[in-house]
Amino acid sequence: MLGHRALAQHPLRPYRSEPMSYLYHIRECNHWEPKRFLPLQVDGERVGRIRRDFVEHLRDWPEVFRVETDVVDWIHPATGFEDRTAAMHEVVSALEAQGIVSHLHGELYPVTASSREHARLLIDRACAAYFGVRAFGQHLNGFVRSPEGLKLWVARRSADRRIFPNRLDNLVAGGLPWGLTLEENLHKECREEAGMAESLACRAVAVSAVTYCRDSKRGLKPDVMYCYDLELPPDFEPRCTDGEVHSFQLQPIEQVMETVRETDEFKLNCNLVIIDFFIRHGLISQDSADYLDLIQGLRSPLP
Amino acid sequence: MLGHRALAQHPLRPYRSEPMSYLYHIRECNHWEPKRFLPLQVDGERVGRIRRDFVEHLRDWPEVFRVETDVVDWIHPATGFEDRTAAMHEVVSALEAQGIVSHLHGELYPVTASSREHARLLIDRACAAYFGVRAFGQHLNGFVRSPEGLKLWVARRSADRRIFPNRLDNLVAGGLPWGLTLEENLHKECREEAGMAESLACRAVAVSAVTYCRDSKRGLKPDVMYCYDLELPPDFEPRCTDGEVHSFQLQPIEQVMETVRETDEFKLNCNLVIIDFFIRHGLISQDSADYLDLIQGLRSPLP
Repeated sequence: MLGHRALAQHPLRPYRSEPMSYLYHIRECNHWEPKRFLPLQVDGERVGRIRRDFVEHLRDWPEVFRVETDVVDWIHPATGFEDRTAAMHEVVSALEAQGIVSHLHGELYPVTASSREHARLLIDRACAAYFGVRAFGQHLNGFVRSPEGLKLWVARRSADRRIFPNRLDNLVAGGLPWGLTLEENLHKECREEAGMAESLACRAVAVSAVTYCRDSKRGLKPDVMYCYDLELPPDFEPRCTDGEVHSFQLQPIEQVMETVRETDEFKLNCNLVIIDFFIRHGLISQDSADYLDLIQGLRSPLP
Repeated sequence: MLGHRALAQHPLRPYRSEPMSYLYHIRECNHWEPKRFLPLQVDGERVGRIRRDFVEHLRDWPEVFRVETDVVDWIHPATGFEDRTAAMHEVVSALEAQGIVSHLHGELYPVTASSREHARLLIDRACAAYFGVRAFGQHLNGFVRSPEGLKLWVARRSADRRIFPNRLDNLVAGGLPWGLTLEENLHKECREEAGMAESLACRAVAVSAVTYCRDSKRGLKPDVMYCYDLELPPDFEPRCTDGEVHSFQLQPIEQVMETVRETDEFKLNCNLVIIDFFIRHGLISQDSADYLDLIQGLRSPLP
């Protein structure tokens, strides 16, 4: 059993006592209680949800946020996109200096009530969850059809990753920063994370999107993961060029299924992307008691 | 434009004046107002929703149904599965004799709050919607990878079909009656509707399920459609053996996309199965403004 072997290699992570399942991971990604959050509004439109403990820090910025009992309104006088972005940057930089926000990432994410195109301002990627704004990412499953059956490329995250160090990951996965198209960012991630040529990356098929909403350490994560399938030639060997991946392994699909079903070895949200792959490739029986819950659970409505 | 040509061939169906879209069909499949219905309970568990106009007819059966202001309870004294099924059959047969129910189908559907396995009794297929019970079906997209690109087999329903005569349909589609497994029924439908050998039918891949809930002429339809992809050899020619299909055509995928997007030429729920196919095969851009609404709209929670 890969999962248990792999867990044993990383003794800091305790064995879980409760039984896992595909549905377990979907539930883990969809825990949040609306009453713990206040809506964040820009121009009267809700663009995020801020946890009540974090709201308290925003009271220091009365010219930017009006904190009421049931809502936080963005009231900064500037109405332009750039000026609003600059104002938000000033806030999060100060919060970082105070140690309230752990770090800034440097990449910018859109603050939007719907799609990226409807962004009203930008926010540092590391702060998206504090404000509970939608985050968009891309995850690619790289697979090989071999004489022995389907195999999936699995990445092991580096030990120095801030989030989920040492866990398993999709072959390519990354956040979608402002200013890049889906295609541009996917090809960039394919190059950086797996050493993939553009000619190979452009064969990736956009197959679905997975949505979830989770109350995380930093705050709410109403996330959209755009999903891709890429059939790879048998002789392709991924090579990480940005240090984010420790190693890669091409695993029989049955082994990946067992790992997902029985362990939390994969980075939490990657489980969902892989379950979506299992479903689309006919690997999860429609007779499973959980089948409809899985199908619907991968497409949670975003608040 | 195929759609308009095809519509012109069937002049009984009026041209629509509003513009269509993929999302249009999903919305059409998900129109219903809870207040028009009363829940139907068996053993205190909700198994359906009955439209208020139909509820009135059930008052004639006080030994079977207790009609209250906000719920209809099944109170027939028999507790066994067979006896309950017989009691329901007596009711629907009488309703058919009175002309309240248009016809009986002969096939039996499970009455269940969740999956088929949890059925509490059976009901004639034609009456499922009157009682608003979940119905399960199977839809198969048969496609060919040709040198000119992807092509999809499209069926034209016979003129004498009770529902959606003359409209376009999936290569194989059918309701899932009680007593057959998913696999058995799929192979049976593949044989009857498309003259497909077992050896070919068993290559179908179970790729997803689409759910919707619609207020129809007869009543509520909270439906589950199990979806299959089947890649067919270029020389395969479907042949209908049960009279349900008038003709088949292998169409370039772009033509099918236009028909779905711009017409209501397909039987209503088939549009959703085909849109799911488009998404999984990377044919709908993730940049489309509707992309997330489509993804989520194909998996509507069942009431």
